[in-house]
Amino acid sequence: MFEFRKPIPIGEAVSRIMANEVNGKTEYISINESNGRFLSEDLLATEDVPHFDRAPYDGFAVRSIDTALANRDNPIEFEVIDHIGAGAVSNKTVGPFQAVRIMTGAQMPENCDAVVMLELAQDFERDGKTFMSTKRMHKPGDNVSRRGEDAKKGEVLVNKGTKINPGIQAMLATFGYAKVPVAKKPRVGLFATGTELLGVDEPLEPGKIRNSNSYMISAQTERVGAEVEYFGTLPDDFDTCFEAVKAAIEKVDMLITTGGVSVGDFDYLPEIYAKLGAEVLFNKVSMRPGSVTTVAHYNGKILFGLSGNPSACYVGFELFARPVIRKMLFSPKPHLRKEQAVLTVDFPKANPFTRFVRSSLSFSNGKIVVAPSGLDKSNIVMSLAGANSLAILPGGTRGFKAGDEVEVLLLEDHEGSEWPW
Amino acid sequence: MFEFRKPIPIGEAVSRIMANEVNGKTEYISINESNGRFLSEDLLATEDVPHFDRAPYDGFAVRSIDTALANRDNPIEFEVIDHIGAGAVSNKTVGPFQAVRIMTGAQMPENCDAVVMLELAQDFERDGKTFMSTKRMHKPGDNVSRRGEDAKKGEVLVNKGTKINPGIQAMLATFGYAKVPVAKKPRVGLFATGTELLGVDEPLEPGKIRNSNSYMISAQTERVGAEVEYFGTLPDDFDTCFEAVKAAIEKVDMLITTGGVSVGDFDYLPEIYAKLGAEVLFNKVSMRPGSVTTVAHYNGKILFGLSGNPSACYVGFELFARPVIRKMLFSPKPHLRKEQAVLTVDFPKANPFTRFVRSSLSFSNGKIVVAPSGLDKSNIVMSLAGANSLAILPGGTRGFKAGDEVEVLLLEDHEGSEWPW
Repeated sequence: MFEFRKPIPIGEAVSRIMANEVNGKTEYISINESNGRFLSEDLLATEDVPHFDRAPYDGFAVRSIDTALANRDNPIEFEVIDHIGAGAVSNKTVGPFQAVRIMTGAQMPENCDAVVMLELAQDFERDGKTFMSTKRMHKPGDNVSRRGEDAKKGEVLVNKGTKINPGIQAMLATFGYAKVPVAKKPRVGLFATGTELLGVDEPLEPGKIRNSNSYMISAQTERVGAEVEYFGTLPDDFDTCFEAVKAAIEKVDMLITTGGVSVGDFDYLPEIYAKLGAEVLFNKVSMRPGSVTTVAHYNGKILFGLSGNPSACYVGFELFARPVIRKMLFSPKPHLRKEQAVLTVDFPKANPFTRFVRSSLSFSNGKIVVAPSGLDKSNIVMSLAGANSLAILPGGTRGFKAGDEVEVLLLEDHEGSEWPW
Repeated sequence: MFEFRKPIPIGEAVSRIMANEVNGKTEYISINESNGRFLSEDLLATEDVPHFDRAPYDGFAVRSIDTALANRDNPIEFEVIDHIGAGAVSNKTVGPFQAVRIMTGAQMPENCDAVVMLELAQDFERDGKTFMSTKRMHKPGDNVSRRGEDAKKGEVLVNKGTKINPGIQAMLATFGYAKVPVAKKPRVGLFATGTELLGVDEPLEPGKIRNSNSYMISAQTERVGAEVEYFGTLPDDFDTCFEAVKAAIEKVDMLITTGGVSVGDFDYLPEIYAKLGAEVLFNKVSMRPGSVTTVAHYNGKILFGLSGNPSACYVGFELFARPVIRKMLFSPKPHLRKEQAVLTVDFPKANPFTRFVRSSLSFSNGKIVVAPSGLDKSNIVMSLAGANSLAILPGGTRGFKAGDEVEVLLLEDHEGSEWPW
């Protein structure tokens, strides 16, 4: 009755998952909807930026050679022959000792190669004409933004797999990407199993609890960049479960179930995987929580059998499902980002398994520090709320002390790690 | 013609804005849509969790007193009188040396106060009955999760103003929050000004550039947690601009314009504010970029006149508009989070103004390090793409060297600072 499962190391478990080929798909969406999505192609400069020599300040465009003799005691006078704002182009030809009054962002008049800033010019009227004078010598290019200075046509601006942020939105607009090539959001199917589960709007009953895992996993899935198709809870009947799982797989890119993976008497997932003919990649991992996570591969899709225990479910998703999703989002670093941090509390108890402690990472005088975000019991939802990281406490015969350096995995970061194990 | 404006310190500018009363509003939304929103009320435990004594492991529920004499040489036998999974409740009365086979998450039978884990039990049949034996003495409460152990009814679980994350979603579900009280997203009106602006789908023309600021500000606004109503670009005509701005204010909680705030000849915003009768809180700040930011107050709403220069616009939004939005989202720490970091490059040039350098913050051996995310020219959109922070270089007569410690403002953090200045 008590099935023995051989646990494998975490890195090996992740390797077995990532060895399966999964590919992202591109879709073109409006720039108005692209913020927060992931680029599926390298972003190229479609033209030089700026695409003309431009004035970066308000002032007077001149031929720098005419200022050659200007100094404190020798102001040089220029006749102001035109006046242009950003967006306008002067059609005057600027000759010796002539100037065009020019506003920030405007295109430089053809013969001009320097801008005398407003603050360094004195303007005045004489004989019904407008003049300005300056006491400053200017070199060619002074106060001019040169064509192509910011970006050259054809240049790679941002690599594919990058999450689009406000700066990238600005860049997309600048280069005329009205439609943006982004990774199609992977569709993640989700079942919650367990006869103890009540709906969020149901009153409590003896022995039962409300289903919270499906809400949690949905939010985690969204955070990573995919979308969830929630298929509801599975009933306590093998045949119904089998048919439901089989049908669901067809509709999604990967399938997550929570619960039913343990060796308990009502844990059907292992049998379902067997009847499907899915290849079980592993069914036990040497880690806490989440050791009974089972992952299988079927028909080119990965099936994640996460624990029904909220904390184990949370950690299992982040370690095993996240990298597959991010790979489909073209990320070169699909895993949780790993950094070094200093523990601020003791963990006196040793544990033979590697522990992933839901933690609150913060900074103290420029250093990363980390503390558990709640009591570290695997059934406590509370500690998940404050978690922005998972502290890794390697398995062994000793505990850990405040001041020890540990590795942490960042949950809310979008850069990731190439291979943290 | 050249208007003199007296710059004020950044902290003073932010103070003047925050002195105006702005209030958030609550709305109740489905838990299915609450991920990423901000709680507008403290979240209370609506009942004890767990709400019954439960088994955290698979095993046998027993009366601990019956195990008192168990040891390696003295296994104690129990008759197994029932078998329950999670969600089920045993209606048997457990007497001396009786046990109930129980699965993880199930409610403890009435008289039982300990669980013998499967691994520490030996089960067998005798005379058509099921038995188990254990060699381990158990104390009352061993392997039992007590009612209320995770949370007590009435307890504050999460404070208002917190951004809802996957862990909080799980908590909301656990406590039956089918409808969640969240801050209504502030509506931010947005105009882009400048006759040089082309649409993202228009081909380039001499002297003109594509409008990128409205896409950038929209994405920044979304990142902070508000929503944008984009009113388009403003034409180069004072009366039309005035009427458009006046009408727009009525429809939103605050109004952002980009461009038109400088002292250039086509900068109408100051005149528009004057004609409206808006109280100008400041029109120059001693900072780079963004010194010509103008902020006004009109009819209980704040009008942000951000620079048309993309970098100045970006920084102005984060320093000035963000805290107002976050205050309306009930955040007790509405400003950008400030931390210490070590510069990894030199900034040899001194600047009399405090500079906000668009930077890429990262970690090196557990320490925060920071480097500019691109060439630090105020007209360069490129450096915004890689920016996750703003390094603060205080104004003065000296430059900065790699290894110097500086303050940084985190752009993608949701915790914030109470008052960073």
